[in-house]
Amino acid sequence: MTLEQMPAWLNAVHHDGSPHYVTLQNDQTATLRLRMSHDAPIERVFVRTAPDGEQHIAEMHPSSTDAVCRWWTIELPLSMPRTAYRFRLLANDGAWWFSAAGPARHIPTDAGDFVLLRRFDGPSWLQDTVFYQIFPDRFADGDPANNVRTGEYTCYGRPVQARTWGEPPAKGHDFFGGDLLGIEQRLDYLTDLGVSALYLNPIFMAPSNHKYDVADYDNVDPHFGGNAALASLRQALEACGMRLMLDIVPNHCGSTHSWFTTAQMDANAPTAEFFTFHEHSEKYESWFGVSSLPKLNYRSEQLRAIMYAGPDAIMRRWLRSPYRIDGWRVDVANMLARQGDSQLGHKIGRGIRRAVKAETPDAYLLGEHFFDGTPQLQGDELDATMNYQGFQIPLLHWLVGEYPLDRNAPPWADRTLLPTEALAAQWRAFLTTIPWQVAIQQFNLLGSHDTPRIMSVLGADLAKLQLAVTLLCTFPGVPSVYYGDEVGLEGVDSLDCRRCMPWDAATWRHDLRAHYQKLIRLRRTAPALIRGGFQLLYAAGETIAFLREAPEQRLLVLARRAASDLTTLPVQHGGIADSTRCRELLSGSVMRVEGGRLPLAGRAGPGAQIWEVER
Amino acid sequence: MTLEQMPAWLNAVHHDGSPHYVTLQNDQTATLRLRMSHDAPIERVFVRTAPDGEQHIAEMHPSSTDAVCRWWTIELPLSMPRTAYRFRLLANDGAWWFSAAGPARHIPTDAGDFVLLRRFDGPSWLQDTVFYQIFPDRFADGDPANNVRTGEYTCYGRPVQARTWGEPPAKGHDFFGGDLLGIEQRLDYLTDLGVSALYLNPIFMAPSNHKYDVADYDNVDPHFGGNAALASLRQALEACGMRLMLDIVPNHCGSTHSWFTTAQMDANAPTAEFFTFHEHSEKYESWFGVSSLPKLNYRSEQLRAIMYAGPDAIMRRWLRSPYRIDGWRVDVANMLARQGDSQLGHKIGRGIRRAVKAETPDAYLLGEHFFDGTPQLQGDELDATMNYQGFQIPLLHWLVGEYPLDRNAPPWADRTLLPTEALAAQWRAFLTTIPWQVAIQQFNLLGSHDTPRIMSVLGADLAKLQLAVTLLCTFPGVPSVYYGDEVGLEGVDSLDCRRCMPWDAATWRHDLRAHYQKLIRLRRTAPALIRGGFQLLYAAGETIAFLREAPEQRLLVLARRAASDLTTLPVQHGGIADSTRCRELLSGSVMRVEGGRLPLAGRAGPGAQIWEVER
Repeated sequence: MTLEQMPAWLNAVHHDGSPHYVTLQNDQTATLRLRMSHDAPIERVFVRTAPDGEQHIAEMHPSSTDAVCRWWTIELPLSMPRTAYRFRLLANDGAWWFSAAGPARHIPTDAGDFVLLRRFDGPSWLQDTVFYQIFPDRFADGDPANNVRTGEYTCYGRPVQARTWGEPPAKGHDFFGGDLLGIEQRLDYLTDLGVSALYLNPIFMAPSNHKYDVADYDNVDPHFGGNAALASLRQALEACGMRLMLDIVPNHCGSTHSWFTTAQMDANAPTAEFFTFHEHSEKYESWFGVSSLPKLNYRSEQLRAIMYAGPDAIMRRWLRSPYRIDGWRVDVANMLARQGDSQLGHKIGRGIRRAVKAETPDAYLLGEHFFDGTPQLQGDELDATMNYQGFQIPLLHWLVGEYPLDRNAPPWADRTLLPTEALAAQWRAFLTTIPWQVAIQQFNLLGSHDTPRIMSVLGADLAKLQLAVTLLCTFPGVPSVYYGDEVGLEGVDSLDCRRCMPWDAATWRHDLRAHYQKLIRLRRTAPALIRGGFQLLYAAGETIAFLREAPEQRLLVLARRAASDLTTLPVQHGGIADSTRCRELLSGSVMRVEGGRLPLAGRAGPGAQIWEVER
Repeated sequence: MTLEQMPAWLNAVHHDGSPHYVTLQNDQTATLRLRMSHDAPIERVFVRTAPDGEQHIAEMHPSSTDAVCRWWTIELPLSMPRTAYRFRLLANDGAWWFSAAGPARHIPTDAGDFVLLRRFDGPSWLQDTVFYQIFPDRFADGDPANNVRTGEYTCYGRPVQARTWGEPPAKGHDFFGGDLLGIEQRLDYLTDLGVSALYLNPIFMAPSNHKYDVADYDNVDPHFGGNAALASLRQALEACGMRLMLDIVPNHCGSTHSWFTTAQMDANAPTAEFFTFHEHSEKYESWFGVSSLPKLNYRSEQLRAIMYAGPDAIMRRWLRSPYRIDGWRVDVANMLARQGDSQLGHKIGRGIRRAVKAETPDAYLLGEHFFDGTPQLQGDELDATMNYQGFQIPLLHWLVGEYPLDRNAPPWADRTLLPTEALAAQWRAFLTTIPWQVAIQQFNLLGSHDTPRIMSVLGADLAKLQLAVTLLCTFPGVPSVYYGDEVGLEGVDSLDCRRCMPWDAATWRHDLRAHYQKLIRLRRTAPALIRGGFQLLYAAGETIAFLREAPEQRLLVLARRAASDLTTLPVQHGGIADSTRCRELLSGSVMRVEGGRLPLAGRAGPGAQIWEVER
């Protein structure tokens, strides 16, 4: 059954996991609420669960009705750690199921159900957080004395090269001198920008500038200032109320790590079982076949103990004083502990969560995942993934096309813009297959050290940049700003996107930075963005619009990728009554809803608008 | 993006796991093939996998083109036990993903991917099997000497009652005398009907007539003839080439089982840990709160060992000589090992599979599941579920409405017929979320000892009965006939559906039985039904149609629930060229495809047709 055949009243049925719709009374009961239009031809409403696998259907009660909405409610017992539920609507022309995947006449599989986790241990501090990602060698050089000197050592056969701040990154082993003290010295800048947490790319000892080739998980690289600099940064961050997340690489280590060099010398060394030698000593499993990154073998119980499970495991120790980091970003979480016949990914992933949360219940556990991470986002493994698939990739495909600016665009890449309906479908698909409690923890981004920079992707089009930043800060999840994006730093690929932060304010795009500041502030203070629900209101032509709805506030976000004939936006199905005043937060315009539609500010585009719906 | 907005050529793109489309070369490589229309505006085609979690996209090659079809092919390396894949189609107006869930412009989640299991251990004998389900007390009384005598014992406080064969079942503890010898004596009847495997409801010692309240898992009930009768039946079945599946109840036992009586007497008894006493000895966990069915507690390692894991576990021993049963039907597999905080279902389910397959690699492991069993059907747990959700429930909802004939229809039941598009959607949803190798093992049925009989559901409408039987025998999966359905036995609920088999042929619906015989024979001999793929060709109005396609044969199945204006069926998107002759197997009609459509035999309805497509 296609959408066209669905009765219009179904468009106005809404539920999500936000406070308007779900209240956890205690760990035994939740109150659920469902919204629909006041005149929906619905006679009775039920909620369907399956405690211990057996279907249970209970009737909801109408709780209130106003000019546009009718609400239904029920107290739901939570007998299991994870309760999946969906609604059953008895209409006068047939019955419908309504799940997170949408409405259906037929019985859907449970995979689309809403999911409520009874005792979810997500970080309590996350909801009003905005991250700032720093590639440490390129952000700020606080202590030139610790800089890598040209020829100081040899990195995979090539001497390292010291570069001058601001030179373009070259292919090779170039170092610019950024360090932890540099970050500490720039906390005023970050506070002024408004961000509240740092995510640092790897800082542990490693030969390369990116340090994903870890040589020693126990020590911060001396070129970044060593462990003392981290302790100092931690203290400084605490003073200004900022959180700190580090990057851990548990999938592989560097070939200079003593675990590996010992194993290579002696096939019977205790650490030999940490690796997979197809033929000792030169043929071994590695990350993408890169010999300097031997893959770690999690069939080894000993490795598990050292990495996360043991009482003093690596992933536990950095959570302790004096570093007290607030979370880990887990590198290539999609590949971790997966090797052909041996697919231990979920087992190791759950083990890591247990260990990290046992050490610091409030820690944030983020996984790198360029693809579909939803199986790892069910509440017992990752707190979030870097949300490429569920946010950034479809957004950029919609704005400028697939794999923009990559000069090596793969032959299978789409050469057309993603239709707006497809953008909505992809956003929905990745949001609705994970519990809401996890969805709002997702790490949203416009780019990272692995992708072209948003400035280059969007061709320095300010309107589109503002649109992208507006969506970054209003979409469900936690936004992250990649250092320098806010001042318009460019970068066309994963090498070029690691340029040095320009500290000469004369080179900055101040208009762009002001927009970042405004949106970051809004994201950190607006209740609708901190804890509001998410309802897609419109997705057609050049326009996408959604409602963020909290008990204290409703915000309506609209984005147009190009000029559009759409002069009014349908909003009645968002529960917004005629005559309601709406104020656009970026322009100050005020409009009243009329005939179920909000008049928009002309056809100008591209751009984004944020309408606050008055109560 | 809705179907209406999809280009028409996408309708003709097809792939499934059948031999036309997938060939496992060995356990390292498979050949994949994709079919589309010869004039689809496709430039290049790719297949997307994610070995060890990292995306890999490889290009397919056009292999052949004929008057209607173009085929693309690729050799796919299988590096993991389970390979998920989807296709990428580069069209001149944009790129599409094509997965088991259908086409999408946006990147879908992996959940809709096609899945190929590298070394799947499904039963080799299953594909041309037709089951016959017998409720032993009601099929045939071979040895009156072993019948339960009135008052012989007391069953949960009420004396048992012997009944005369053919009396209506009454609420209570009534016994009709059916036994295993009775079944053995009727094998000629079953051979004549054409079925090739028996599924017996529980036969182990238990007080009730249904024997789901097991008192002793080690012995066949003496009223059914004891263990010797089972050994004898096994031998007789082997002589006529029939398989045998028994019903095991691992979720709970009967309160008269010595495990439980001992535990109730002594809280420290070794078997006390097999149960969950909330308060010894009267408050304990039980199946749906029925005190005579105490729930078994799989947190107990000892229980696991006794039930399935140990070398001489219950589920292993019956697989051995002289019983050599060919499979287990696992009662309430949906609830097994699930108790609130402790959700061990998948763990125990996988353990049962390992034990059963270690004992008899070719055994069939079927689970009772009235709801969504797809998470247990991923290749490492159940071989199949009783396919209520994926076949029977939507079919009956489409034909006569939801929960037909149940005098206690729940208040949430739909009072309208399921739209044909929704029938197609439900069939697809439950087929496409499990690997094809598992989907074709699904246990399809029109009813069981737990449901109203199909004769009563359809109101003795022969045309609709024939339609239902035709779909039962042509839908992907393994059909099962509930004893007596073939002669028109009635039964309006789960008590009444256990009537005695009528052995007076004068009372039989011979027309119906002849249709069963014809369809069972077809199912067991037609290559397209034994191993053919499945493509939904049409679902609108009153008509649903699908193609079963094997290298040796193509069958086109069409069902109309009512008279319809549809006089021709679109078939070109099934790869069927104009001028192709099609012969209807039930009527003998012959038609030629013209303008991409097959002329049908008038508007008469309801009914079903099976067209063999000539090569």
